[in-house]
Amino acid sequence: MRVTDPAAVLALIWKHFSPLGAEKAALAEAGGRYLSSAVTAAEDIPGFDRSTVDGYAVYARDSFGAQEGLPAVFGCAGEVLMGEAAISLERGRCRLVHTGGALPEGADAVIMLEDTEVMGTEVHAFRQVAPGENVIRKGEDLRRGETALPRGRLLRAPELGLLASLGVTAVEVHRRPVMGLLSTGDELVPFETPVLPPGRIRDSNSTALAYLAKQAGAQVIGGGILADSFDHFLEKSRALLEEVDFLVLSGGSSVGTRDFTARTMAALGKPGLLAEGIAVQPGKPTLLADCDGKPVLGLPGHPVSALVVFSIFGAAMLRRLSGGEMPLFQPAVRAVLARNIASRPGRTDYVRVRLEQGESAVKAVPIFGRSGMLRTLAAADGVVVVPPAKEGLAAGETVDVYLWE
Amino acid sequence: MRVTDPAAVLALIWKHFSPLGAEKAALAEAGGRYLSSAVTAAEDIPGFDRSTVDGYAVYARDSFGAQEGLPAVFGCAGEVLMGEAAISLERGRCRLVHTGGALPEGADAVIMLEDTEVMGTEVHAFRQVAPGENVIRKGEDLRRGETALPRGRLLRAPELGLLASLGVTAVEVHRRPVMGLLSTGDELVPFETPVLPPGRIRDSNSTALAYLAKQAGAQVIGGGILADSFDHFLEKSRALLEEVDFLVLSGGSSVGTRDFTARTMAALGKPGLLAEGIAVQPGKPTLLADCDGKPVLGLPGHPVSALVVFSIFGAAMLRRLSGGEMPLFQPAVRAVLARNIASRPGRTDYVRVRLEQGESAVKAVPIFGRSGMLRTLAAADGVVVVPPAKEGLAAGETVDVYLWE
Repeated sequence: MRVTDPAAVLALIWKHFSPLGAEKAALAEAGGRYLSSAVTAAEDIPGFDRSTVDGYAVYARDSFGAQEGLPAVFGCAGEVLMGEAAISLERGRCRLVHTGGALPEGADAVIMLEDTEVMGTEVHAFRQVAPGENVIRKGEDLRRGETALPRGRLLRAPELGLLASLGVTAVEVHRRPVMGLLSTGDELVPFETPVLPPGRIRDSNSTALAYLAKQAGAQVIGGGILADSFDHFLEKSRALLEEVDFLVLSGGSSVGTRDFTARTMAALGKPGLLAEGIAVQPGKPTLLADCDGKPVLGLPGHPVSALVVFSIFGAAMLRRLSGGEMPLFQPAVRAVLARNIASRPGRTDYVRVRLEQGESAVKAVPIFGRSGMLRTLAAADGVVVVPPAKEGLAAGETVDVYLWE
Repeated sequence: MRVTDPAAVLALIWKHFSPLGAEKAALAEAGGRYLSSAVTAAEDIPGFDRSTVDGYAVYARDSFGAQEGLPAVFGCAGEVLMGEAAISLERGRCRLVHTGGALPEGADAVIMLEDTEVMGTEVHAFRQVAPGENVIRKGEDLRRGETALPRGRLLRAPELGLLASLGVTAVEVHRRPVMGLLSTGDELVPFETPVLPPGRIRDSNSTALAYLAKQAGAQVIGGGILADSFDHFLEKSRALLEEVDFLVLSGGSSVGTRDFTARTMAALGKPGLLAEGIAVQPGKPTLLADCDGKPVLGLPGHPVSALVVFSIFGAAMLRRLSGGEMPLFQPAVRAVLARNIASRPGRTDYVRVRLEQGESAVKAVPIFGRSGMLRTLAAADGVVVVPPAKEGLAAGETVDVYLWE
C-alpha cells in the first residue's frame, strides 16, 4: 500500500479544498464560525472618554504638585451618573465619576477616590495625576474605520463581545459544512437493532462519527448502511455527494470492503484518490479523494481506527471547509509515560493513554488493546503521538497527551 | 474586600451544588452529557468469535510445526462471507475469513493470508498459530452483565460508539442546565442599538457569555438589561431564578453597581453570598451565592474580566450541574514567555498572550491592556496563569498557555 505521511495529508486537504461560500449569520448564531470578510469598526470604541476607576474627574494640571500634606483643592461640581452624557467642567473644579462613566467635557484625568478626601463642598486630592491618567480615550480600543476583525478569524467569545460592542448584529461567515455519512459492510446492521442476527454487528461508527462532526461544526446527513454491491453503492454515494459538501464512507473492517470503497471513491469524480493509505497507526487503510472538487474520506472499518482518523483528518477537513487555517498549536497535558511504547519507525503512532495523578506528576498509562475494541478507547483520556522518526517511547519520558473531548 | 482563593471557590461550587436531575436522552443527542446511572452490557461484545485479520480459520493444533519449507496443509472448505453466521469446520480443513468475520465453529485461530499459499483445493500454511491467535473472542471487549460505562461518565465519541455497539438507543443523563443571564448598569443599552445615545455603551457581555455557556452545554435564557433600581432588580432576578438552574448577573463596571448586585444576591435566598471577591486578576470583584440551593454568579462588569471569570468559574458551575467532576487535567500549549510579567503575590493572574511560532519554540507574547478593552482579548490566543506564590514570570521561562476556543 502506498501510504502518505500525515502532515502531507493535511497539506493535501488545504491544497485541494477551499472554504465554503459565505452567508449572513446573526451574531447569536455566529460563535464557532469563521469570518468570510473582515469587519470594519463603524464607530469609535469607546465612543467617549471614560473613567477606568471610581474617582474625581479633573483638569490634570489643576492637580500638579498635590501630595500628602499638601493637597490640591477642588470645588465639587457634583456627580456624573452612569449613562449620563458628558457635561462640562470648569477649571479648578471636580466631578465624581464612576468606573466606566463619561468624563466631563474639559476634564482629562481622574483622581482615584482613595487619594481624596471630601471636606464639605470641597474635595482635597493628595496625589497629582497626569493628563490621560485613569482615563480610556474615545477610540482607544478601536477607531472608526479600522479593521475590527480580519477575514478568516474564528469567532470566539471575545470576538462576539467585540462585535456586540460595535452594534454588529449579523456577520458574513463561511457556510457550515454539510457532511454525508454512509456505512458499508455486509456484517453491519443499524445500531437500533434490538437482537443481533448471527454473524452481524451493529454500526457503531455512525453515531460516534456524527458526534465528532457536529463538534467540528458540521451538519450531518446519515445515509445509513448500504450493501456491498458496487453499482448500488456508487449510485447512492453519488446521490448523497450531490447533497453534501463532504462525504465520509465508513467501511466494514475487511480488506474486500476497503477495496470496494476505494473503487467507489475513484469512480465518484476527478482527480479521484489523493491518498490510498496514511502512515499512521491505527488508521493506515484510510482513503482520501477529491471528486470534482468535493472531498470524500474513506475510513478504516475498525471503530477505534475510524474515530482516531476522523478526529484528525475528518475534523481538519471540516475546519478547512469552514474557513479555518491549519491549526498551529495544539493544547496537550504533559505527563510522564508509565510504560514503554514500541513503535515502527516511518509511521506515526497514536497510542491511547489513561491519565492518573501521580505523587509528583501526571502519569500517562498506555492502554493496549486491539483497534477493534471500543472499550479501550472509552477507557482512554487521550492519545500520545509517537513520531515517525522514533522507534518508541520509554517509560519515564515526558510526553504530550492530546485529550479526547 | 474579603477575597477567596480560586481553588477554594471551585471547592465551594462542588460542595454547595449538585448535579441536576436525570432524564432520558436519545443516543444521538447524548454527546457531551454525563451519565446519571451506569450502563450495563445486555450482551457480549463481540457477540461471536471474530477474526482480526484476513486469513484462514483453522484448528490451531493443525498448524503446529508449520514453517517455511514445511507447510501445514489444509483442505479448503470455502469462505465465510461477512455477516454470515458461524458454520462448522472439520479438523484438518480451513476456511477463508475476512477481518471482522465470524470464526467457523470449532476453529480457534486464523493464519494470516500472507503466511499461506493456495495450491488447487489445498491451502499451504508456512507459519503455525497458537489457539486464539488473530481472534477476538466473544465477550472479550465486554461481557454481558458487566458495567459498560459507570455513572458520571462524560459521553464522548468513544462512549457513544460503545453504547451504539450494545444497541443502546437512549441513556439516563443529567439534565442540561438552564442558565439565566441578566445585565445591569445604567450605562448599558441592548447591543442591537444602532446609534448610541451619549454616555451609553452596548451590552457586549450578554452575547459573549451566552456563547460560553452554550459551549459548556447550557441552555441560556436572556433576561435583558435591568435598571439600577433595587426593588425592581430583585423582583426580576427572583422571577428569573425560579425558571433557571443557575443565574448570572453581569454588572456594570462601577463599584455602585457591584454593591447593588451583592445586595440583590444576598436577598435572593439562603445562605446567600459564599464569596465576595476572588483573588484573581482580572476578575477580583466576582460574587458567588447559594440562594436556597441555586447558584448565582455576579460577574465583574469589565468585559474582559467577565469573560475570564465566566470561562473559569461559570463553566465549572455548569460542569458541576451537568454531572461532571472537577477537571483534573487541563490541556495547554507549552511556550516560551517573550517578556517579563509582573504580578502581585497572593493573587492568581490570568495574563492574555498571543502565540507565535518562533524559530525553535512557540513564543507567548503578553498583551497588555486595560481589562475594559475587548480588543486585547480578541487578540489573545489564550492565557498564562501566574500562581499566587509568584511575583511574576520572567522572559525566557517556559509557560503553559490555556487556549480560548
